[in-house]
Amino acid sequence: MKAMAALLTVVATSGLSGPAMAAQDPAPGDAPLLAQATQPGAVLASAASPDGRTVLQITTDNDGHMLYAVKRAGKAVVEPSRLGFNLTDQYALYRKMRFEGAETKSADSRWEQPWGERRFVTDRHNELLVRFRRDEPGQRRIAVRFRLFDDGVGFRYEFPDQASLKTVNIADELTEFVLPPEGNAWWIPGGEWNRYEQLYQKTPIAAVPTVHTPVTMQLAGGPYVSIHEAALVDYSGYWLKGYGGGRFRTTLAPSSEGPRVTRTAPFNTPWRTIRIADTLPQLVESDLELNLNEPNKLGDVSWFKPAKYVGIWWGMISGKWSWAEGPTHGATTARTRDYIDFAARHGFRGVLVEGWNKGWNGDWFGTGEEFSFTEAVPDFDLRGLAAYAKSKGVHLIGHHETGGNIAVYERQLDAAFAQNAALGIDVTKTGYVADLGGIIAPGDRPGEVRMEYHDGQRQVRHHLDVVKTAAKYKVAVNPHEPVKDTGLRRTYPNWVAREGARGMEYNSWEPFGNPPNHEANLVYTRMLSGPMDFTPGVLSLVGSNGNPLASTLAKQLGLYVTIYSPIQMAADFIENLEAHPRELEFISKVPADWSESHLIAGAIGEYAMFARKDRNSQDWYAGGVNDATARTLNLDFGFLDPGKTYCATIYKDAPDSTYLTEARHKIAYDSRTVRKGDRLDLFLASGGGAAMRLAPGKGC
Amino acid sequence: MKAMAALLTVVATSGLSGPAMAAQDPAPGDAPLLAQATQPGAVLASAASPDGRTVLQITTDNDGHMLYAVKRAGKAVVEPSRLGFNLTDQYALYRKMRFEGAETKSADSRWEQPWGERRFVTDRHNELLVRFRRDEPGQRRIAVRFRLFDDGVGFRYEFPDQASLKTVNIADELTEFVLPPEGNAWWIPGGEWNRYEQLYQKTPIAAVPTVHTPVTMQLAGGPYVSIHEAALVDYSGYWLKGYGGGRFRTTLAPSSEGPRVTRTAPFNTPWRTIRIADTLPQLVESDLELNLNEPNKLGDVSWFKPAKYVGIWWGMISGKWSWAEGPTHGATTARTRDYIDFAARHGFRGVLVEGWNKGWNGDWFGTGEEFSFTEAVPDFDLRGLAAYAKSKGVHLIGHHETGGNIAVYERQLDAAFAQNAALGIDVTKTGYVADLGGIIAPGDRPGEVRMEYHDGQRQVRHHLDVVKTAAKYKVAVNPHEPVKDTGLRRTYPNWVAREGARGMEYNSWEPFGNPPNHEANLVYTRMLSGPMDFTPGVLSLVGSNGNPLASTLAKQLGLYVTIYSPIQMAADFIENLEAHPRELEFISKVPADWSESHLIAGAIGEYAMFARKDRNSQDWYAGGVNDATARTLNLDFGFLDPGKTYCATIYKDAPDSTYLTEARHKIAYDSRTVRKGDRLDLFLASGGGAAMRLAPGKGC
Repeated sequence: MKAMAALLTVVATSGLSGPAMAAQDPAPGDAPLLAQATQPGAVLASAASPDGRTVLQITTDNDGHMLYAVKRAGKAVVEPSRLGFNLTDQYALYRKMRFEGAETKSADSRWEQPWGERRFVTDRHNELLVRFRRDEPGQRRIAVRFRLFDDGVGFRYEFPDQASLKTVNIADELTEFVLPPEGNAWWIPGGEWNRYEQLYQKTPIAAVPTVHTPVTMQLAGGPYVSIHEAALVDYSGYWLKGYGGGRFRTTLAPSSEGPRVTRTAPFNTPWRTIRIADTLPQLVESDLELNLNEPNKLGDVSWFKPAKYVGIWWGMISGKWSWAEGPTHGATTARTRDYIDFAARHGFRGVLVEGWNKGWNGDWFGTGEEFSFTEAVPDFDLRGLAAYAKSKGVHLIGHHETGGNIAVYERQLDAAFAQNAALGIDVTKTGYVADLGGIIAPGDRPGEVRMEYHDGQRQVRHHLDVVKTAAKYKVAVNPHEPVKDTGLRRTYPNWVAREGARGMEYNSWEPFGNPPNHEANLVYTRMLSGPMDFTPGVLSLVGSNGNPLASTLAKQLGLYVTIYSPIQMAADFIENLEAHPRELEFISKVPADWSESHLIAGAIGEYAMFARKDRNSQDWYAGGVNDATARTLNLDFGFLDPGKTYCATIYKDAPDSTYLTEARHKIAYDSRTVRKGDRLDLFLASGGGAAMRLAPGKGC
Repeated sequence: MKAMAALLTVVATSGLSGPAMAAQDPAPGDAPLLAQATQPGAVLASAASPDGRTVLQITTDNDGHMLYAVKRAGKAVVEPSRLGFNLTDQYALYRKMRFEGAETKSADSRWEQPWGERRFVTDRHNELLVRFRRDEPGQRRIAVRFRLFDDGVGFRYEFPDQASLKTVNIADELTEFVLPPEGNAWWIPGGEWNRYEQLYQKTPIAAVPTVHTPVTMQLAGGPYVSIHEAALVDYSGYWLKGYGGGRFRTTLAPSSEGPRVTRTAPFNTPWRTIRIADTLPQLVESDLELNLNEPNKLGDVSWFKPAKYVGIWWGMISGKWSWAEGPTHGATTARTRDYIDFAARHGFRGVLVEGWNKGWNGDWFGTGEEFSFTEAVPDFDLRGLAAYAKSKGVHLIGHHETGGNIAVYERQLDAAFAQNAALGIDVTKTGYVADLGGIIAPGDRPGEVRMEYHDGQRQVRHHLDVVKTAAKYKVAVNPHEPVKDTGLRRTYPNWVAREGARGMEYNSWEPFGNPPNHEANLVYTRMLSGPMDFTPGVLSLVGSNGNPLASTLAKQLGLYVTIYSPIQMAADFIENLEAHPRELEFISKVPADWSESHLIAGAIGEYAMFARKDRNSQDWYAGGVNDATARTLNLDFGFLDPGKTYCATIYKDAPDSTYLTEARHKIAYDSRTVRKGDRLDLFLASGGGAAMRLAPGKGC
């Protein structure tokens, strides 16, 4: 590649001083790339993004540590940072690493998503592969493949096939991210907390402890940065451990086995990703992680239909109904028929029913020993209801709560999805409610168990096994208490959504359980990783024991345009939904699949306003959420298609709306004719939001 | 025990609500202790310290978590905090724990140390043993034994012999310490950093990250608290992980095996300790951890002689000599003879020689494959020098640097100590210089290795194996890059000292490498755990490349009275020591064994002044160290024996001394007659210190 040739300089060095290295010859294969040894710190290889603004440099130091550094427009984004591994049964691949050579490539392509926030994704990057060998008798080899995009950098380790390193037992990964410490970060605690259901915190970068990814940062006066990973397959998820002063290092989720990860070479690790964006729209609309995942392996997935659903769920979350059998059992045949009727009446494709199966009566939390994923409880006529739903053009949504016991679940996996498919249940929600380190995996012998982490290698394998098994039967999967999203929906498009953050349910469990800025944090953090089954649409704005939501009525509609998922719930009791006919009409119409999506206004943790275009029509939608600070946005309709006239049907906060009082129920309706370039002052109340449908035609 | 009866209240409860528990009968054996179930949160058992000021309460919560809480004079020191374990192969012993009963005991005794900071130690405590059983088919049982002293609390878990829990595979320990968050803490980072050679930091308690123990805190307006552990045997050391808001939890050092600790029941964990002190002298002079260790298992250890030593060491640290063979090799026969002559001349018992053995020539850091612990290099006449030393009444001090490779070391262990003993080498310094997770243990098959942590169970076992092997040959051990001290010197008095903090060497590697307040931090943190081989006595006040020490000349003498070790080095080149005859005389005379030790003035991280009484005479010594702030202490001689007259020989900073300039070499001498109750204004320069010998008699 001519373009790349200029971007690449390579010299050989050992990164070690002294006669030991001088005695070594360059590997013959690398002859063209090798010049004579230079001193530690010399640039061994470098590459740049297609726009030339992001530059990567590879060096080694006196001890032979492998180092990478990233600059953006001449400014350091990642200072020289170490790479490597501790192994449980061999010397670390960390010190004494000798640079062997580098190779480059570049790519420019466009690919289509079967569903998502946008139809087409551009993948344009320059690639640099650097190869190292340890200065030791075994001469173990490792490579690092970097991809530089205009919107960030991804890199992964590659363990080649080699005699001296077959089984790779990784004690921990030692990948550093040394950032300029000035600036702010938005994060949730990582470490041994297995789940992601925590409120986002904002601190100086220098004060970030061990956190989950994605973690979002804004360097002082500089770009936004989001550190995460892509294509987490057969490996442990990592936590980002802060050491203060902007220094971070990966820590892999532990395993009940010694190594946190065990693989056989040749293999590649997941990609470590660094989104770099000058603006929030660039940060939010980046497809970096999707581009680093492999293309669709399932072929035609048109059998999955992005859609909305209702369900027998909020009744349990709000404490009115129970999962367990008994007088308060939620999942009864009669009630399910009512929900199916409602769904048919209002154009919801799906009806989720939790507590339909056997195993809920005892103590299932972190145990799950009694769960059956094929047998319904007596007062739930599974087959009859599936047939009734079919007759109404509705599909039941399956539910597989495991209590964290994957030993029990995996035994039934194939039968469970086979049955779902046979019954037209083509979307299934899974669940892994358990305590610390509480995933119960099969042990080596019958009756034995292995206690694993929600994001360790074993559970990462489990999630993909579930997705693959489901795909075999043309069923889509929506895991709760999941592993974080790393873009695998590109490769397995039936992995349609997941939880992995504090969803609507927290608004039921305590008053204002999710504070008003929660969703405005999610947009710029958790949502960078992929779709979330947030379950919006609690139009009654009330949870258990009368707990009020930190939300106005309009915000509940705004959530449908803000928090993307190809399966969107209307979470409230159906009678509450029907009590709000105008809001219900919006929810019935709002799409779950888009051809374009744009962040048109926002600030991290304060507010976010999106414009999205329906993938199946010319309609545009705009909507957003606000924190506790009331504000008026001067909305720019520049996103609309030129030359068209739209009728905007607007749902917005009333002038005296606020989440703090009963005024949270106040909403204002408006409709007006708009064209591209028009502007509109839009009021967002404290804890408020807004939503609008823009239909092309003659206007209103 | 009548006294205890009043202190003890016990009722039975399940800590769980609902019929499941109501259905369970109390264990018959506990009948006398059991009443009917009470609601969660009710006090199940309690106990108090002998002075009644420290009170412990045991409760459970709705989920059946085991909780303990500690109050001091009615004020919370530890809020209700959880106890328990994650296991790799069974459900956690954490939730669903049912209280079974409690037992009490009390003790009051005094025991004698063979050597130390004081001759006699008082052990007076009340004990509470609480027993729990998990609400599950296996009914696994666990007990927690608490000991309440006037100066703090210790507790350990006890796993009884039981059918349902034989091999205990601990994934992690879940012991919480929830402290009032207001107040300050002094700490060094823990986590995967294996060694302790870091500078102490002071932060609010709420901002403490993962740290090593002991960690020292001062609760707002309340007592000083030091959290640590005692009797770390066949278990992993723990790091104290801060979650903010004063909440901490133990994290065990990892293992190359799955479980961080594997034991067979019955067994007990190490003691988790909480020193509680109203004053700094109480904090510093507490024997809590020693009292929680088992008595001397070695019998007569009079063969170990507390003493001072010089050595061929600073020459390598300062870059003048090398460990490896060659023109700059430090450990030559001729030079060692000079050091032996010097030691004999000035009354030093020991001569340490590093680089005497084979294995230093290649890359030994984190490798150690070539080390021999019996074969000397050609230019070091081991046997001849040992004989020469003996003829002079001097003993060579052995040196076993492993580079972290205990696989190589353990193969030679017995032979190495047998040879040392045969040569009169009755003290040996060991070393484990290695990278992260860099302890190289033998693998399962020949040629295989297991990479372990400096403070993991495997290395904890190794250290005790070394100490026991050495004891067999009547050799004392002084490990560098050790595991933290947990008071095992009481049980194995040949474990005489260790490094485990930033010692003198850092003053050589960079200018002011240890800042002036470093030693004033060590006194109140690291030194709470036990003796340190700090290696004071660099009278030239200069390290490599002319790097100046952050110390005045007087401070170097003050260190001998401040930083206790039964083996104290005079670290400088012998020609530099002889260039300071008056200071050398003090070092020659100052004891390494005391009958009493008292902190007589000080503030954490600012200064510390000790008074100690020679164990082998009626002489008292006083001395201390200062930070960068010059100050004058009004020293109170109240520590002296009544009715006696002393001549005080005083070494102090000159009025214009400061560590910042060449004036660091300025020292003032004084001698005066003093009696108990006299006072003396004592000037401490910036980076300064003072030392004095007080000999009873007619005065000066």
